[in-house]
Amino acid sequence: MSNWYLQGGKESDVVISTRIRFARNLANYRFQAKYTTQEANNILNKIKEITPSIGYGLRYFNLKDIDDLTKISLVEKHVISPEFLKNYENRAILINDDENICIMINEEDHFRMQFFAAGFNIENVYNLAKEVDEKIDSLIGYAYDEQFGYLTSCPTNVGTGMRISIMVHLPGLFLTKNINKVLNVVNNFGMNIRGIYGEGTESQGDIYQISNNQSLGISEKTIIKNTKAITEKIIEQERTARKILTKNSIELEDRVYRSFGVLSNAVKLSTEEARELISDVKLGTDLGIIKELNDAKVLKMQLYTKPANLQKYIGKEIGKYERQIARAKVIKDIIKEN
Amino acid sequence: MSNWYLQGGKESDVVISTRIRFARNLANYRFQAKYTTQEANNILNKIKEITPSIGYGLRYFNLKDIDDLTKISLVEKHVISPEFLKNYENRAILINDDENICIMINEEDHFRMQFFAAGFNIENVYNLAKEVDEKIDSLIGYAYDEQFGYLTSCPTNVGTGMRISIMVHLPGLFLTKNINKVLNVVNNFGMNIRGIYGEGTESQGDIYQISNNQSLGISEKTIIKNTKAITEKIIEQERTARKILTKNSIELEDRVYRSFGVLSNAVKLSTEEARELISDVKLGTDLGIIKELNDAKVLKMQLYTKPANLQKYIGKEIGKYERQIARAKVIKDIIKEN
Repeated sequence: MSNWYLQGGKESDVVISTRIRFARNLANYRFQAKYTTQEANNILNKIKEITPSIGYGLRYFNLKDIDDLTKISLVEKHVISPEFLKNYENRAILINDDENICIMINEEDHFRMQFFAAGFNIENVYNLAKEVDEKIDSLIGYAYDEQFGYLTSCPTNVGTGMRISIMVHLPGLFLTKNINKVLNVVNNFGMNIRGIYGEGTESQGDIYQISNNQSLGISEKTIIKNTKAITEKIIEQERTARKILTKNSIELEDRVYRSFGVLSNAVKLSTEEARELISDVKLGTDLGIIKELNDAKVLKMQLYTKPANLQKYIGKEIGKYERQIARAKVIKDIIKEN
Repeated sequence: MSNWYLQGGKESDVVISTRIRFARNLANYRFQAKYTTQEANNILNKIKEITPSIGYGLRYFNLKDIDDLTKISLVEKHVISPEFLKNYENRAILINDDENICIMINEEDHFRMQFFAAGFNIENVYNLAKEVDEKIDSLIGYAYDEQFGYLTSCPTNVGTGMRISIMVHLPGLFLTKNINKVLNVVNNFGMNIRGIYGEGTESQGDIYQISNNQSLGISEKTIIKNTKAITEKIIEQERTARKILTKNSIELEDRVYRSFGVLSNAVKLSTEEARELISDVKLGTDLGIIKELNDAKVLKMQLYTKPANLQKYIGKEIGKYERQIARAKVIKDIIKEN
């Protein structure tokens, strides 16, 4: 059974993944801004101690004991945050084999708990998140205030401490030039939507992340309801855009097959170019235009063309130029797989 | 047996074709600038009458009796000149099935005789040209002056009336940025070299034509010797350029395989884009990088992607947009052929 990020899911023609994150802190320890190295260390030891009791196949790893390639590969999978790697001391993760649960210890908060599923699947992810969250609370006790809710390092996370992030692929809205209109509407709706590769720049690969920007004064139920509603609206608009595109199917077929041609024949490919080409090819596959591929192969290509995951896949560390060559070869291999 | 332009020839990694053209006029008829319609007609009748006596499988066709698509397809094959099509009246061609002999009647001169071979093959083409030329002279008598040689409409063709044109593919010199240097040297050497698609613009498809620009005061032998020498020099320089390129073989492989990828996957292709892509793919095939193709397939692609030949190949007249789609399909079919 492959990991969650290599599986298909509900509405996976548009929705890549569902993530729920809880920010939590322990009741009897000072927060990150104030704690001493010794206190941070005590937190780690405490959590390491209770890990077997949490269950869910979670295992404890000190961040400084994880090799660099693995650390970056986890960021590339969005399982840990890039910020978490800025300091390796007194940080750890709890992670299971499937990697659909990953709890960062001593990131901005004592706990940054992340739960994932492929496709659009808020209910399942939320149920799992609540279970694990309550289990840990019962074992160790969170900092909680009757009036404010869960207390966090940054005031924007106080309250539910919950953020839902839905990663979506919106090439149809981009190609029909409707993407900016949609982004504006969503952002005016109390939600964030932004390109996942560098803010302010154009989303490369047409991948965007929808998330709630409010966690205080709003219930988990309302966050879920709003996120679901806005995501459903975006799915609908993306599908409408694709229908418009398929009316002029020659132009679309030409675009996606040219990208497939370059992707399957290039001898070297940069991360960025691969991302762009895979975006086109995913669209072509999702619309049934490209017959040579399937969802599973597209997911593998998306993952193993990222620099660190590429190196883990081929089993050795190589420089940037060699990666470009290896990336082209890995893509060819994935296309040829049975 | 396929026509000459679908065959390989000597040095065909660089030299596409060898053409020799003789400009001739009849002794007892006024030249084109002066003749009446009746006189032009008399010339046609006279030549039609002697055609069976010339032999070589030549057949007579009035230009106005040839359908438009066929006429343009002959221009695309460089078998007749574009200028010849500017007026259909009182013009005819003698052509054989292989199309390696094509004699235009009442172009700028009474006779514009063209002889062709694939690859670099001046001797054979010259021998054939002389045979046919002498045969016609013996049957009908050319305008010839002891001092000036063969008399022609335009003074630049007086003398031997001979022009040798060698069509060459020079992607290596282009990619190593040596092409302009080579063009300048050749042009200073009493020879012309220019891109075959539109003068003054960049040669699209990296195809150039080398030809002598002098026919008076110089013997046929000297023209042959000079053209051979300069062509051999260019072949050598192109091959040197390709060696340099293959030293950095990843870059070259990437370039030619990307072009192959687009060519074999695009759903629509313009004439110009196809020409550019085929140029890369030909280079890749000639250097043994691209294994999916061979010379014969590249030659077919070069021919049948040209607008009129494309329509003749698929057997119907279609508009420009439909041609772009048909062109992509024909290329896919040629690639898949056994």
